[in-house]
Amino acid sequence: MSRTPSSPVGLHRVLEPAEASLPQAAQRLDATPELWPDEVRISIETLNLDAASFRQLSEKHAGDGAAVRAEVLDIVATRGKMQNPVTGSGGMLIGTVEEVGPESSLGLAVGDHVATLVSLSLTPLVITDDLAKWDGRSERVPAQGHAILFGRSIAAQLPDDLSPDLALMVMDVCGAPALVARVVGEYAARGISPTVCVLGGAGKSGSLSLAAAADAGAGRRIAVVPFGREADLLAGTGLADEVVIADARSPLGLSEAVAAAGGPADITVVCVDVPGCEQPAILSTAQGGTIIFFSMATNFAAAALGAEGAAADVRMLVGNGYVPGHAAYALDLIRGNAAVRGLFEGRLEH
Amino acid sequence: MSRTPSSPVGLHRVLEPAEASLPQAAQRLDATPELWPDEVRISIETLNLDAASFRQLSEKHAGDGAAVRAEVLDIVATRGKMQNPVTGSGGMLIGTVEEVGPESSLGLAVGDHVATLVSLSLTPLVITDDLAKWDGRSERVPAQGHAILFGRSIAAQLPDDLSPDLALMVMDVCGAPALVARVVGEYAARGISPTVCVLGGAGKSGSLSLAAAADAGAGRRIAVVPFGREADLLAGTGLADEVVIADARSPLGLSEAVAAAGGPADITVVCVDVPGCEQPAILSTAQGGTIIFFSMATNFAAAALGAEGAAADVRMLVGNGYVPGHAAYALDLIRGNAAVRGLFEGRLEH
Repeated sequence: MSRTPSSPVGLHRVLEPAEASLPQAAQRLDATPELWPDEVRISIETLNLDAASFRQLSEKHAGDGAAVRAEVLDIVATRGKMQNPVTGSGGMLIGTVEEVGPESSLGLAVGDHVATLVSLSLTPLVITDDLAKWDGRSERVPAQGHAILFGRSIAAQLPDDLSPDLALMVMDVCGAPALVARVVGEYAARGISPTVCVLGGAGKSGSLSLAAAADAGAGRRIAVVPFGREADLLAGTGLADEVVIADARSPLGLSEAVAAAGGPADITVVCVDVPGCEQPAILSTAQGGTIIFFSMATNFAAAALGAEGAAADVRMLVGNGYVPGHAAYALDLIRGNAAVRGLFEGRLEH
Repeated sequence: MSRTPSSPVGLHRVLEPAEASLPQAAQRLDATPELWPDEVRISIETLNLDAASFRQLSEKHAGDGAAVRAEVLDIVATRGKMQNPVTGSGGMLIGTVEEVGPESSLGLAVGDHVATLVSLSLTPLVITDDLAKWDGRSERVPAQGHAILFGRSIAAQLPDDLSPDLALMVMDVCGAPALVARVVGEYAARGISPTVCVLGGAGKSGSLSLAAAADAGAGRRIAVVPFGREADLLAGTGLADEVVIADARSPLGLSEAVAAAGGPADITVVCVDVPGCEQPAILSTAQGGTIIFFSMATNFAAAALGAEGAAADVRMLVGNGYVPGHAAYALDLIRGNAAVRGLFEGRLEH
């Protein structure tokens, strides 16, 4: 079989558009099971759809699980990957390593039980069981089929001491705590214990970000949540010094609530997946401070123009989901922090 | 007169919608001339309409200047600010400081000749001369009336030694060189002379970014431009060590061109206002490097997921248009760098 050479970022698997495009931006990928020499094939066990993607699909079909399932199958069949065409987002998967190309440098062996930490939005994927075991009503999708990892990709072995579901849920958001720890650590290295405010502090990435902030040397930690029942989740956990109920989309409401809790923050971490949090986050952050946007609902222009319009000298970081060692770090946070582990295990029960 | 306290970002001037909204998002502002204690009133001399706004108005009225003028007057009378309802954009203005509130911290004095660096889309404005001196056929609008600056706003004194048109053009993009200088300076402070690559290096923000990089201690400077005639603009200026003609939207094309010019870059500056430059910028940047996105066409999710998908450990900054001292710094670069001044003066002649 004659083939073009493989690219470590998967350019060789792009079918549409024909010109050089990356797998994530591509309309359609080649998901055939035969490997290029630096690739790895995974036998799928579970897909975890990205929350924004699942919500969009669910709302579009008014909660009709069969219709959601049919659309997911159609997307994967049409695109060769599970990338929601509206949200652009994907998710991740767990499975077992089925074949390792001779030139792969990912350090995986056949039989390894792994989670992929690159988005499904760029991962070649074939589903072979019609998703018969999924009711279309949860982000967690039991599935059979295969997925392909490129030369430069990220997969983590699932630990023996944590359930796969727990590990997967943690790894899905592991970029956030790793980047928060890095940024807080930069302050700590200068002898500063920064005030850290996490919008969406009771959520998965939010609670791990709070744990990471404490671990890396933060001073006061403020969690912002939208409702009393989310505040109750954090009460008594020690993850935050202050738990504030406020609407993260309200510029005045949020900034006043954060100020009353000891803000403005030196570092604001946006983990709320709703549009319109850019200006409120900017106004809740001290001059000279840093905002890390992890929400995929972040609007670039709203952030850039919002800071300029308020004469806000804030450093704004795009929340890159990749930091070396991020999965191991997040799993260690879970192992060492009973409060955040409890929050995650509580989610698994629902 | 009994009044609510003022807000540094102008919440107190918002009339519609009634609930707390920022001036930029508001339908209507209170533009009465009486100042809150932290405000400044400017006597207007010229409005510079945003290019996108003027184009929309001009096309809507098929070039009928009187109709364009009537609509601008109607917008300002109705909204209390010059924000085009279709494009959402505004522009900036030049004028003279008329009154300074006792608690203003903008450092302005009565009689100062200034340009406002916050958008007209959030600036309370009253026009009193019916725009009688404007024919409705250019973005530059001679006008009489007043504008209000909030407590936390930005205005820069117009220099005596540069023409107002040149100064305005420089100030319009002054956030880019200031942030580039700050980031390059952070590397320089650690004894590193970073390789800096500017996508769109022959443009206004791009050429100033190259000058700022050199000023702040960059090592190799690479300019990427789309066409030969832009490369010609930079040839012999010394602004870049290498001028590369490449398509900034092509992941493979750009990364290979930058590598051939001495890359990957430690710092990549994106000044190209077309969509799809996120992944190419990521692949052209070294692991551990920094990308600064100044293009308003930047897609947040494409940047976040693109880095993750390529396992790229890059720091990605939203190009905040405000850095303290940015206008003065950019004007100094123009004064001290004949090459970049020549590029700007060349634009004025067209």
